[in-house]
Amino acid sequence: MATLEDVLASIDANGQAALDRLFELVRIPSISAQAAHYPDCDRAADWLAAQLSELGFEARKELTEGRPMVLGAAKARTRDAPHVLFYGHYDVQPADPLDLWKTPPFEPRLEATARGERIVGRGAADDKGQLMTFLEACRAFKANGGLPCHVSVLLEGEEETGSPSLPAFLAKHAKALKADLLLVCDTNMWNADTPAITTMLRGLVFEEVVVRCASRDLHSGLYGGPAINPIRVLARILADLHDDKGAVTLPGFYDGVEDMPEEIATQWRELDFDPTKFLGDIGLSVPAGENGRSVLEMLWSRPTCEFNGVVGGYIGQGAKTVLPAQASAKVSFRLVGRQDPARIQQSFRSFVKARLPADVKVEFLGHDGSPAIGLPARGEALRRARRALEEEWGAPAAVIGSGGSIPVVGAFKRELGMDSLMVGFGLDDDAIHSPNEKYERRSFHKGARSWARILTALSQ
Amino acid sequence: MATLEDVLASIDANGQAALDRLFELVRIPSISAQAAHYPDCDRAADWLAAQLSELGFEARKELTEGRPMVLGAAKARTRDAPHVLFYGHYDVQPADPLDLWKTPPFEPRLEATARGERIVGRGAADDKGQLMTFLEACRAFKANGGLPCHVSVLLEGEEETGSPSLPAFLAKHAKALKADLLLVCDTNMWNADTPAITTMLRGLVFEEVVVRCASRDLHSGLYGGPAINPIRVLARILADLHDDKGAVTLPGFYDGVEDMPEEIATQWRELDFDPTKFLGDIGLSVPAGENGRSVLEMLWSRPTCEFNGVVGGYIGQGAKTVLPAQASAKVSFRLVGRQDPARIQQSFRSFVKARLPADVKVEFLGHDGSPAIGLPARGEALRRARRALEEEWGAPAAVIGSGGSIPVVGAFKRELGMDSLMVGFGLDDDAIHSPNEKYERRSFHKGARSWARILTALSQ
Repeated sequence: MATLEDVLASIDANGQAALDRLFELVRIPSISAQAAHYPDCDRAADWLAAQLSELGFEARKELTEGRPMVLGAAKARTRDAPHVLFYGHYDVQPADPLDLWKTPPFEPRLEATARGERIVGRGAADDKGQLMTFLEACRAFKANGGLPCHVSVLLEGEEETGSPSLPAFLAKHAKALKADLLLVCDTNMWNADTPAITTMLRGLVFEEVVVRCASRDLHSGLYGGPAINPIRVLARILADLHDDKGAVTLPGFYDGVEDMPEEIATQWRELDFDPTKFLGDIGLSVPAGENGRSVLEMLWSRPTCEFNGVVGGYIGQGAKTVLPAQASAKVSFRLVGRQDPARIQQSFRSFVKARLPADVKVEFLGHDGSPAIGLPARGEALRRARRALEEEWGAPAAVIGSGGSIPVVGAFKRELGMDSLMVGFGLDDDAIHSPNEKYERRSFHKGARSWARILTALSQ
Repeated sequence: MATLEDVLASIDANGQAALDRLFELVRIPSISAQAAHYPDCDRAADWLAAQLSELGFEARKELTEGRPMVLGAAKARTRDAPHVLFYGHYDVQPADPLDLWKTPPFEPRLEATARGERIVGRGAADDKGQLMTFLEACRAFKANGGLPCHVSVLLEGEEETGSPSLPAFLAKHAKALKADLLLVCDTNMWNADTPAITTMLRGLVFEEVVVRCASRDLHSGLYGGPAINPIRVLARILADLHDDKGAVTLPGFYDGVEDMPEEIATQWRELDFDPTKFLGDIGLSVPAGENGRSVLEMLWSRPTCEFNGVVGGYIGQGAKTVLPAQASAKVSFRLVGRQDPARIQQSFRSFVKARLPADVKVEFLGHDGSPAIGLPARGEALRRARRALEEEWGAPAAVIGSGGSIPVVGAFKRELGMDSLMVGFGLDDDAIHSPNEKYERRSFHKGARSWARILTALSQ
């Protein structure tokens, strides 16, 4: 019978073919936030369903009210093996601002650096490169006698837009999706040499607020003074959302937020995290969050309010003395602990409405929220995965939090009672959601090897 | 010898040809704020120089460091006639937001309404329609024995971008431009039945402020908290610029602002101005400017700070959890009395810099400012023009202020010691600078007749 060594050798031998497959997937601009790219989302789903079929999965595209899901299932070589469900997402963030990309975002390429080659393109890391590490591991098992675990796969197309169709989908397909453990590959390593398992994730509330004043755009000379300016109204609302100490001022915002247990706080202090370097890498030096909190706390265990976009009036080149009719902002809240997304959305809307002068109308474009996640930091699966990762990378795997949000993890816990194992091979400088997103070729290669080791470890 | 009645009859008989000429000019998208349209500005200048030549002017296009000027000069039929200089501008505002235009902005058309026909298109009123009223009057004089005044014409291509090349141009061409009186057609009637002469104009300072934080766009989950958000910084700055009573908070802002002399205040009170209707026409009901001031005061004799545009982060459809690297705003100040544009620009820049947190860089893109203008509200030219307008419109001409800015008027006063007569035929609902800009066909027709009467009156 083929051994783990055979499987790893197979991954090593097929690096170029694996890269070609990832490039094919990155070339599909599956941007879930933009209607013009909905057909591309469908194409990406079809491509992945075909991949899974080729790997011996029973695979199909499942339609939803939004972008389709891809479902696949394959048996292990032994009947009494454990059953895992792998989750990834094939949708990507919009690529703009396009002018900051060195090469077109959907024309993936290899770039040589002192640290090795990197794969550049929108989705190279988030999440196409990451999800393909798992599929490449499955491919190597298929070529060497079969899978060590029963494996189901769920690939979503709406992760970047708040997973609106996911809860209903999980409820409807509960029986097909129920497994012993959820594997998620959408997180980062601790650093380029240290793998990590993520056990805490922040939740998310995303709101768009549109402020409307006059019935049309006006000349700022002929109307400026008596006519209310929506940018002025919006600026006041946004400015009021933080106090001078960096805390969020929404009433009730910190309900359900608690300080970390001392055990976890100690573990975080022991991580070799350098806040000066972390900020320096992005051109900053002073932490901007709540006064008195460490950078890791700000990222992993404290909630935030961020402004993701704002627009109003004339934004082209040069001067235009318009007094605009409307202005809008995209505002998101990252949640921790037991903060309730619905209550925070409600509090935000009340906060805005309380600050509207006469004649000003407001519209909210909301998205489903997700609460924060805390996963068991002890347990057999975690222990086995840590050992497997240490064997691959030669360094103990860190157990960490993440400031990002992965709504699927909470949904699986709520809907199906399943715990998750979050292992990913991204790096902090991958520039996901930014221009020139990249994934280290080493992450791609050793990521596949890591999954081969983890699946083997889970089955033993 | 031909009489004024012959000239007016000639204008009446050539309405369709005049409209065709205006349509030709509106079709040229001469947007001075956008580099892509610089060639169109040149085309508009060439077209106007050709028109002037056809009317017997010695005409030429004069290059500047920016968009070209058009200069023309024609003699009166009698040598001792007065000499007037007519000023207009052929450049137009950007047409966006394009999706709010009912028909393409540079495809002019007639629209029938209960009030008569209107000419729809970018620049139909501001300032192509207005300047063509004067050229059509000159055409009618040419067909009827010649001009009653010596007429020079200066048509500018940078009015909508703050007239950066104008001061140097006036200095260089002082001798050619010097005349007894400057005629400007870039203002409004008091209402559809009441002509007006404008004697007060607000000044303008236009600034663009760009706030830069991190060295690249970031993921708001992975960096939100410790990384400073430029929209948060900008919102705080903009919010701080007004106090709760609608006053501008810039230090020194109100230096040089005085209450109106009782004589003018009385005159304004006697105008049949309905603030409720003025605001109601644009969907508003409550004046937003300084508490305790009337709407006419807010527009004509009080300074303002307006936000003309703001942009940062993701402004496309749907959600994108980006933490942007920069945000920017276009901010303009309307000035009155003896407010000093340079000092206000300086005060604004200091105000912004004082509110920048650590790590935040700022860039200012400034434009030349212009002080407010007050013209003599008595005098022979004004008296003659009022009488000529009353004869055309059957109602006394109102003597009013304007909230807008026409930098050329101040420049001529400073550089050449010339006073101006500002007469225009725009209406408050012309939507200049907005989608679906229009000019009443009646304004276009009776505007030409008004100029025929004014030139005649000035020469007698």
